Amino acid sequence: MDVFEAIRKRRTIRFFRQEPVSDEDLRGIVDAGRLASCAANMQRLRFVVARTPELVNAILAQTKWAGRVQPRRTPQAGETGPAAFIAVTLPENAKDVHIYADAGAAIQSMELEAWGRGLGCCWIGSVDIPEVEKLLEIGNGQKLLYVVAIGYPAEEPVSEDISSPDGIAYYLDENNKLHVPKLAVDSVSVWK
Amino acid sequence: MDVFEAIRKRRTIRFFRQEPVSDEDLRGIVDAGRLASCAANMQRLRFVVARTPELVNAILAQTKWAGRVQPRRTPQAGETGPAAFIAVTLPENAKDVHIYADAGAAIQSMELEAWGRGLGCCWIGSVDIPEVEKLLEIGNGQKLLYVVAIGYPAEEPVSEDISSPDGIAYYLDENNKLHVPKLAVDSVSVWK
Repeated sequence: MDVFEAIRKRRTIRFFRQEPVSDEDLRGIVDAGRLASCAANMQRLRFVVARTPELVNAILAQTKWAGRVQPRRTPQAGETGPAAFIAVTLPENAKDVHIYADAGAAIQSMELEAWGRGLGCCWIGSVDIPEVEKLLEIGNGQKLLYVVAIGYPAEEPVSEDISSPDGIAYYLDENNKLHVPKLAVDSVSVWK
Repeated sequence: MDVFEAIRKRRTIRFFRQEPVSDEDLRGIVDAGRLASCAANMQRLRFVVARTPELVNAILAQTKWAGRVQPRRTPQAGETGPAAFIAVTLPENAKDVHIYADAGAAIQSMELEAWGRGLGCCWIGSVDIPEVEKLLEIGNGQKLLYVVAIGYPAEEPVSEDISSPDGIAYYLDENNKLHVPKLAVDSVSVWK
C-alpha cells in the first residue's frame, strides 16, 4: 500500500472480525514501532505482544473505548474483540516528557504498518494500568503506558474535514457508522 | 512509495541539498500531521510552517543537532541547511502527558509523508523555545514544543540491528556516513 494512502485512509478501528492475526504480521508491527523516531536514539520503549484469546480478552476487560459516543463503542470478546494487544512500556525511571512523544511516534508507525497489512488498530490510553501490568507480568523496571488493540477491521469509519474545533466530537450515524471530524490543513496551520 | 518501505528506509536527515521544497509538499506534510492519531480526537496541536530562507536560517541558529557525535552534525545555512521548518505547538493550558504522545504521532506521520515525497526530516527537541516562539510569533495561548527540519537529503544514513542497549550510540564512519544502531525486534519485545 502506498504510504500516502495509508496515512490518509487509516482510521482507528474498534470492531474487529474474529480472525487470528499471524505472528508474522505482529512482528512486522513491532518492527515498525522499534524503527520510529525517538529522542537521542535512546530506544527506551519495549513491547509486550499478547495474542492468546484468554489473555486478549482479559486485557480487553480492563480497557475503555470511545468515550465520546453512547453507547461506548466497546468491542465484545468473541464477537467484535481484537485478535491481539501490543502493550507499550517504558522504564520506570524515565522522568522526561519526551518518552511520551517516543511512544506516540512508535504507535503511529505501528498503526500505519498494521493498516498496510489490512489490519486495524485502536490506541488505548484508558486502561487499568496495574491490572494489565499484572496480566502481562510487566515489571523489572518497566511500566505500562498504552495498549494497542489489533485485528481485522469489521467497521469502516470515515473522516470528514471541519474548520472549527467546536466540531471535533466523533459520532455515529443512523447506520452505526463512525464519523471522525478532522480539522482541515488551513485550520491547524500558519504559514510564514 | 510503499508504506513498508517508508517505515523501514526512513532515517533522520541532518544534511540537506540546497533546493526549495514546494508549498504543495509542505501542505502534504501538515496534512499527514493533522490526520495522525490523537487522544480523544481533541486535535490540540497546531503547525507553523516557516519556509523563507531568512526565517529558516534564524530558526536553524536556535537549534542543536546530533549530540552523540563530534563534531555535532549541524547543518550550515546556505550549504547543508534545511529548506523549511514546521513548528509543532500545543495549548499552554494542556497539562496532560498525552499531548506529547499526540505530537510524537503527528511528527512520525509527517516524517513518513515527507520520506514518501523524497524529502528528509530531523525532529528537534533541542531548540531555544522562547527565541523561536518570538521568531514565529507563537502566542495567543499556544506554546512551542518541537520543530521539524525538512529538505531534500544530502546524506544517506544507515541503520543496523543490535541486540543490546549498550550499543545504541549512533556514529560516523571514515566516510562521514552516519550509522544508527537499532535494537532488533527480539531485543525489544516479549511474546505472550
